[in-house]
Amino acid sequence: MPGGTPRITHATLENGMEIVVIPDRRAPVVTHMVWYRNGSADDPAGKSGIAHFLEHLMFKGTSKHPQGAFSEVVAELGGQENAFTSTDYTAYFQRASKEHLRVLMEFEADRMTGLVLSDEIVNPERDVVLEERRMRTDTDPGAQLNEAVQATLYSHHPYGTPIIGWNHEIESLDRFDALAYYDRFYTPENAILIVAGDVEQDDVEMLARETYGLVPSRGAKPVRRRQQEPEPRAHRLVTLSDPKVEQPSAQRVYMVPSYTTAKPGVAAALEVLAHLLGGGSTSILYKALVLDRKIAVAAGAYYMGTALDETRFFVWGIPTPDTTLDDLDAAVEEVIHGMATTLVDADDLVRAQTRLVADAVYAQDNQASLARWYGAALATGLTVEDVERWPDDIEAVTAESVRDAAAAWLLKRRAVTGFLITGEEQEA
Amino acid sequence: MPGGTPRITHATLENGMEIVVIPDRRAPVVTHMVWYRNGSADDPAGKSGIAHFLEHLMFKGTSKHPQGAFSEVVAELGGQENAFTSTDYTAYFQRASKEHLRVLMEFEADRMTGLVLSDEIVNPERDVVLEERRMRTDTDPGAQLNEAVQATLYSHHPYGTPIIGWNHEIESLDRFDALAYYDRFYTPENAILIVAGDVEQDDVEMLARETYGLVPSRGAKPVRRRQQEPEPRAHRLVTLSDPKVEQPSAQRVYMVPSYTTAKPGVAAALEVLAHLLGGGSTSILYKALVLDRKIAVAAGAYYMGTALDETRFFVWGIPTPDTTLDDLDAAVEEVIHGMATTLVDADDLVRAQTRLVADAVYAQDNQASLARWYGAALATGLTVEDVERWPDDIEAVTAESVRDAAAAWLLKRRAVTGFLITGEEQEA
Repeated sequence: MPGGTPRITHATLENGMEIVVIPDRRAPVVTHMVWYRNGSADDPAGKSGIAHFLEHLMFKGTSKHPQGAFSEVVAELGGQENAFTSTDYTAYFQRASKEHLRVLMEFEADRMTGLVLSDEIVNPERDVVLEERRMRTDTDPGAQLNEAVQATLYSHHPYGTPIIGWNHEIESLDRFDALAYYDRFYTPENAILIVAGDVEQDDVEMLARETYGLVPSRGAKPVRRRQQEPEPRAHRLVTLSDPKVEQPSAQRVYMVPSYTTAKPGVAAALEVLAHLLGGGSTSILYKALVLDRKIAVAAGAYYMGTALDETRFFVWGIPTPDTTLDDLDAAVEEVIHGMATTLVDADDLVRAQTRLVADAVYAQDNQASLARWYGAALATGLTVEDVERWPDDIEAVTAESVRDAAAAWLLKRRAVTGFLITGEEQEA
Repeated sequence: MPGGTPRITHATLENGMEIVVIPDRRAPVVTHMVWYRNGSADDPAGKSGIAHFLEHLMFKGTSKHPQGAFSEVVAELGGQENAFTSTDYTAYFQRASKEHLRVLMEFEADRMTGLVLSDEIVNPERDVVLEERRMRTDTDPGAQLNEAVQATLYSHHPYGTPIIGWNHEIESLDRFDALAYYDRFYTPENAILIVAGDVEQDDVEMLARETYGLVPSRGAKPVRRRQQEPEPRAHRLVTLSDPKVEQPSAQRVYMVPSYTTAKPGVAAALEVLAHLLGGGSTSILYKALVLDRKIAVAAGAYYMGTALDETRFFVWGIPTPDTTLDDLDAAVEEVIHGMATTLVDADDLVRAQTRLVADAVYAQDNQASLARWYGAALATGLTVEDVERWPDDIEAVTAESVRDAAAAWLLKRRAVTGFLITGEEQEA
């Protein structure tokens, strides 16, 4: 998350749509994003993949604009566009010269209500998604292991389901599912407009009122219903063996609090912990496994802090050719045990904090990254103030809070270990 | 499942309620059961435990009969009563002298529509259920491991959720949840009446019409919506370590077809396979691990064939004090590999078939068991004819079909292995 110099403003239209304006005057361009507070974890039971499928279908035209018209306009304006679906949100993105902001807003507002879907459009697109899934997972044992690890970590919460959905459920998605989902979630109350660029707040808000403001309110935010994961009690090891694996690897994924669910200070401590433990070649894990013990060719850790519900802390390593995954995993465990029982060096701690905050400042150089940070934060229940306070939160982390975070959350029973192995596909 | 000599009849009331009458004239008693085609796997998302909770609440009285009245009458008549909730069904049971059948039916029919629930009744009963859960799992590491293994095996399908529910979801169940569930599932179209005993079909049907027949039809069966499990791709090992464990043990649970989902012949082959592999002290697993290699003090296998969806095949072993669970598991794997690659001895096969069919015939001696078999079969989508044909299906199993069932279904990637270990609770 970024620490903030830009004066960022936050407002709400009468129909409930939120507006965040991020001034960035270095170039006469504008980044325009609409974020919906629904991701794959909000897919109705048995309809996994619908959030992502609908993201595809949002490019299929409305009662006002035929399929492809919006994309053509963006291209004609020399702009870029994109869209993405995550577990917690779906977002639509365009970048163009700043004088075209109104056009982008008109088109995006239009597809918030006017989507037209027929079987002729929906059914072939479903095949596109199924092919996308095949390409990503069917030929990639690493992707298959990741799916199995997530499904094991989240046996009850929908984070265990891949964003793209399970194949057998994607196959059953139809026009009615898509329209029901669209009607439920694509509403002004559920949307956040993020505009970053060489713009004035008042101008953006006026444009927003004249475009998005015309979308009728639905009266209330859609409800996000998610099963929560029970407290884990047992360690789980997932092993995927496949002749296509060229490089064995080990990972550990711990279920931990997110910025949204954590008690004050805990998420920042986990962030600093991840950086100290596994952020690059000066990290404790890298030094222990790669440099000192020479049992890994690479190792790292990261904290996926932005999530509406309990989230994931990843630790991974790639063994040297003569190291077994069991030995590598035991060494990882030892390092984690060290983090949970001893205090990190004070200088290392300050270096990690400085680096995290600096990275966030550097990232503000990229207008789209900046817009993305605010969008993801707001879509997962944080506020503009939370984002702006983030550098202070990181700097407030102490060696004690890093140790305590490791001791409280990096417990074996909260973890799923994943082993990717070269070998026969597993039979009896 | 039983092979059948009794002439069993099957009929349907006008309101959709099914009636199965099982003549059994050895004593002047009658077993009266009502089965509802809804179990814990039909619990709405986020409401786990509601099927079981409602089973408790069904004893809380109706607009016609106060709490306890039904149970008192059963006791006064010298009868017995019980109720149980499974993943696929909920059933209510009474046994009494045959002349009291009408009274049992009147009371059971009454609580199909007349249930009265207030917060004063529902809230304390929820505490009873929470306490039941605490007693069963919080002090029992073996129960905790079983829950974790099931949750891992079924990451998407609701068989991964305990029948009693997850604690945090039970806590949120209230009167409105209970009534909504009751209205949805406790309908004549969803119910099966099983009467076994010294009764005539015509008499039972007449009584049923005069009692259950008065319950208004709802027009259609309730829909059972369940997420299906994706095809598993990776083996999973779940390890639970706890100082309270006195005896370490290993289990393997494979996801396999049920009698309801399997292609013809496959479920019977799995049944015979389980018996050959692990049915008692003459089984292949017992001979290999306990008698020959002396690495286990006990070992066995069983097939949980009666299930609406893909079900479970269990293999388990208890190691000798000087055997590790890894070694025991490797030996189990070897035995299973043998089943998948070689044909069982012809005499052993016939012995297994004879034993399975004989067990079923013996079990008919118990009126309640007989009623239970038919009820469970019908509630999971089978027919009276399926049950009656079962001995023939078992006798039709060949050595090839046993081997092929092992080769097709007892694959490591379809399995979750569970290790129960004496030791510290797992920390980093």
